[in-house]
Amino acid sequence: MSNFFKEALPFYKKLSKEEQKLIANNIYEKTFLKGTIIHSGSQDCTGLFLVEIGAVRAYILSEDGKEITLYRLLPRDICMFSASCVMNNISFDIFMETITDTVVHVIPPDIFKTLKNTSLPVADYISKLMASRVSDMVWVIEQVVFKSFDKRLAAFLLEMSAIEDSNTLATTHDQIAKNLGTAREVVSRMLKYFESNNLVELNRGVVRIIDTDALYNLSES
Amino acid sequence: MSNFFKEALPFYKKLSKEEQKLIANNIYEKTFLKGTIIHSGSQDCTGLFLVEIGAVRAYILSEDGKEITLYRLLPRDICMFSASCVMNNISFDIFMETITDTVVHVIPPDIFKTLKNTSLPVADYISKLMASRVSDMVWVIEQVVFKSFDKRLAAFLLEMSAIEDSNTLATTHDQIAKNLGTAREVVSRMLKYFESNNLVELNRGVVRIIDTDALYNLSES
Repeated sequence: MSNFFKEALPFYKKLSKEEQKLIANNIYEKTFLKGTIIHSGSQDCTGLFLVEIGAVRAYILSEDGKEITLYRLLPRDICMFSASCVMNNISFDIFMETITDTVVHVIPPDIFKTLKNTSLPVADYISKLMASRVSDMVWVIEQVVFKSFDKRLAAFLLEMSAIEDSNTLATTHDQIAKNLGTAREVVSRMLKYFESNNLVELNRGVVRIIDTDALYNLSES
Repeated sequence: MSNFFKEALPFYKKLSKEEQKLIANNIYEKTFLKGTIIHSGSQDCTGLFLVEIGAVRAYILSEDGKEITLYRLLPRDICMFSASCVMNNISFDIFMETITDTVVHVIPPDIFKTLKNTSLPVADYISKLMASRVSDMVWVIEQVVFKSFDKRLAAFLLEMSAIEDSNTLATTHDQIAKNLGTAREVVSRMLKYFESNNLVELNRGVVRIIDTDALYNLSES
């Protein structure tokens, strides 16, 4: 077990020795392969997740199976919705899937609950984290309501390229559609339009970015 | 000054006598006429709002003037984004407008900040409130991404009717469009469709609901 959590949990240093011990004795590490669903809705209460390696996407699901990505967790990011039984006022089902092979550290729900109810630094950190999640959600709303689809798709391709550190994205049009909350046909049409403008190159199951600058300008326009 | 805040602030009874006095000595009441913009973006830091009478809508604004409503504040609701200078990790500009004549109680930002940094009950309440705001945002995303416009419009008309306690809504198609983040033409077309199905009756600046049950069934379908 690495000591990564000691410097990665923003509130760790502000805790009492007993509280620190409570975490150190109970936190555990878990490794997931790419594409694993690690959290399924509000019934699922694994505990607080702290990402050490990899990337996770958090998304919601409609009754008819449509998805939209709400935010992504990267190394040092923390998610509390995976401890939804501990949180109040969470009235939605959130799902999480690993984008790459991922290592997380988990604080079990009962430990998290104890700290949340007795420690001001933890309570304060939770409200900060929640505020940044509200910001994430507002960003999604702005994207969906205010931004046209070509810009959203360009931004998404660049983001995935940064996460995977590659210009060659192994992804289907269906997967992209699920991230952006739209239909596969809409994605295919726009990707073909991008290809005809020499922004990307398409092959079966692969989107290769060939003009990063142009995609960037489009996403920011 | 009424003592409404003493029983309406969920954390009030859990505070020390000094903390209670700090609030009682500094909270003030403010009355706004319908249609007043009471908060304009993250530069604006009035303090924590507690609504006693009336209704407020919180919305975001695109560069080209499009709006979408994120949530509404009704009596006993509390908003902290109006104290955005005190909150961390808020990276968006939120606006608030009174829907009816409204009375709010305001805790000034410096008082709110002191309590937030020293009181566990306040810090815990903030994280709960933030969690319910995240839920509000997810609801908006679900509406916008997963629900077709006829259902959203039906739900909106019913909600306004409940808030104003009347079946006759004094509102323009443009105002409805701003609430729902769409174009006026889209609203006009759908309202005309509703009218042709005897769900509503349209007159200049007025939408009258004539079949509440049918609208309800549509919104839930």
